[in-house]
Amino acid sequence: MINVAVVGFGVVGSGVVELLDKNNRLFSKKIGQEIACKYILDIREFPDSPYADKFVKDFSVIENDPEINVVVETVGGATYAYDYTKRALLAGKHVVSSNKELVATHAPELLSIAREKGVCYLFEASVGGGIPIINPMYHCLAANELNKIVGIMNGTTNYILTKMVKDGITFETALKQAQELGYAERDPSADIDGIDTGRKICILASLAFGRHIHPENVMTKGIRGISLEDIYEADKQGLSVKLLGCAEKTEDGNIEIFVAPCAIPKDHPLANIEDVFNGIMVTGDAIGDCTFYGRGAGKMPTASAVGGDIIDCIKGTEKSSLYWVDADNSAFVRSFDKLDLEYFKNDIVLLKE
Amino acid sequence: MINVAVVGFGVVGSGVVELLDKNNRLFSKKIGQEIACKYILDIREFPDSPYADKFVKDFSVIENDPEINVVVETVGGATYAYDYTKRALLAGKHVVSSNKELVATHAPELLSIAREKGVCYLFEASVGGGIPIINPMYHCLAANELNKIVGIMNGTTNYILTKMVKDGITFETALKQAQELGYAERDPSADIDGIDTGRKICILASLAFGRHIHPENVMTKGIRGISLEDIYEADKQGLSVKLLGCAEKTEDGNIEIFVAPCAIPKDHPLANIEDVFNGIMVTGDAIGDCTFYGRGAGKMPTASAVGGDIIDCIKGTEKSSLYWVDADNSAFVRSFDKLDLEYFKNDIVLLKE
Repeated sequence: MINVAVVGFGVVGSGVVELLDKNNRLFSKKIGQEIACKYILDIREFPDSPYADKFVKDFSVIENDPEINVVVETVGGATYAYDYTKRALLAGKHVVSSNKELVATHAPELLSIAREKGVCYLFEASVGGGIPIINPMYHCLAANELNKIVGIMNGTTNYILTKMVKDGITFETALKQAQELGYAERDPSADIDGIDTGRKICILASLAFGRHIHPENVMTKGIRGISLEDIYEADKQGLSVKLLGCAEKTEDGNIEIFVAPCAIPKDHPLANIEDVFNGIMVTGDAIGDCTFYGRGAGKMPTASAVGGDIIDCIKGTEKSSLYWVDADNSAFVRSFDKLDLEYFKNDIVLLKE
Repeated sequence: MINVAVVGFGVVGSGVVELLDKNNRLFSKKIGQEIACKYILDIREFPDSPYADKFVKDFSVIENDPEINVVVETVGGATYAYDYTKRALLAGKHVVSSNKELVATHAPELLSIAREKGVCYLFEASVGGGIPIINPMYHCLAANELNKIVGIMNGTTNYILTKMVKDGITFETALKQAQELGYAERDPSADIDGIDTGRKICILASLAFGRHIHPENVMTKGIRGISLEDIYEADKQGLSVKLLGCAEKTEDGNIEIFVAPCAIPKDHPLANIEDVFNGIMVTGDAIGDCTFYGRGAGKMPTASAVGGDIIDCIKGTEKSSLYWVDADNSAFVRSFDKLDLEYFKNDIVLLKE
């Protein structure tokens, strides 16, 4: 019997609890034994939830229960989530996370603890929502020297840019619509200023290049300054404007990484990815370009990625493990002024391929 | 020290040998020990190859060498390849394959032997060339009830259809060009009659639905009958014509599976996949639609998939294993006349979503 504790009962956490319930037979079949959610930790009260009897408020209940095999961390942020994750790993429990901020900042330390304790720290859901990207990139493309990653990794900004060009509305109007539909937060800065994309490209680049790249080392430009005029001019020239996270290994072993609105040709594999969808293109020396495309956010898609990781943890620790070196490799990251970028117009980078 | 034997020194086999050589340091790092290709089996002579000293002609050399950990089977067909694979697995060696015919026909038996012997039989390269599809679908989407798979899985026919619509040339002319470029065989039947796509959709559907679906149970229509007129008419109506492999689980538990040229809306994720590229869309109850896109054939892309599987074999047998039930489940497959398909024109199926 496998017991799971879900920490944080927000959009993703509640999705994971529901998925474990709804597809329980499927989970059990895949791992060869029964599985259930034993605890849910949240500071809020949910007296009407069908899972009301599972709620706890004190993490040490989870930490000290030897029956708990997997802790799912969907708290977000890097304070409580960091503390819970570390304690869970040190207690010899697998941790599955959807928390890009924590992973981008503290993964090397947390992965080292997981390795020492012989458990997994997996975070497929932290990038691209439900789209399988971390596992395929790290495992299926393992025989490749990976050179480049380019992706639309934030659904909110992609929705806004799509609406602007399709409906001819300004950035401000499109943002307001996104907020009304629940796609954007009341404080939309993490999305529209590219911070969220920055964390995600750091996670992928760190795994691909084996060096920890801190989000604060990444040049990040958001989409606040994009005018309808810019978008129309790009459109006329056969280009689409997308907020991209880009990371590339240069021939001298450095890493060029940035987040910026980019104008890309309309036949680029990412050019037709619209609305809240995400798409990520990975380039390796054997495979060439390979693109992964799907729902980059949302309750059940993200729960799907968490669920896959839960099954992976149980089935085989060794094979499932992720790892990158713990050293601070900021020295390898090209500083802003050293990035030899061509601009289409204003702050929009021109990417020709 | 891990020793690999590559059986068959054709396009894929030679690519695997070269990749093991070129990215040797990468392989070693990933598996934590040294790795080398010890034998190459081919009935032909390659006296000028840099790997000339590795060639053997008798499979029992490989079978009886306890130093061989992994056998890579790129022979093709289901005669010699079947014999070699079975003997390698029975000798307790992992087998990695790019052979869709063998996998589609005999995987249940071969997977059972692998399971008994505690080794892996992996075949990521058998579908979609280098594109990670089997591993992500089977492992990352493991928490989903998978309902549907639709894909462009044959580069030759996709090249021909792309050329017809872009250059305004007939099927016959496009086929001749594909043959001149080496994209199509002199006897192109396996590609253009949909046989190759049929094998691939059988492999994916068997893994997704847990039932062995034999290729001979699949309604298969190829692209021989497609006229330029059909393609232009589709284009005018905002549709693209693609040779698709489609498999869907119906509500009553049956499986609808077929291969046919299909007219799909131009905003469909597969509509803009051109030339020799492949794209596969998988639908699950939690993730929704998720699409994988890249080079579906070719020497190094296919070697990339084989290389990923070699690393997977060594890193963790339990986690890497694939499995589906061994029973003959042809009863679940809807027969031709029971498929409720709508037609666009002639033999072209109309797929609305």
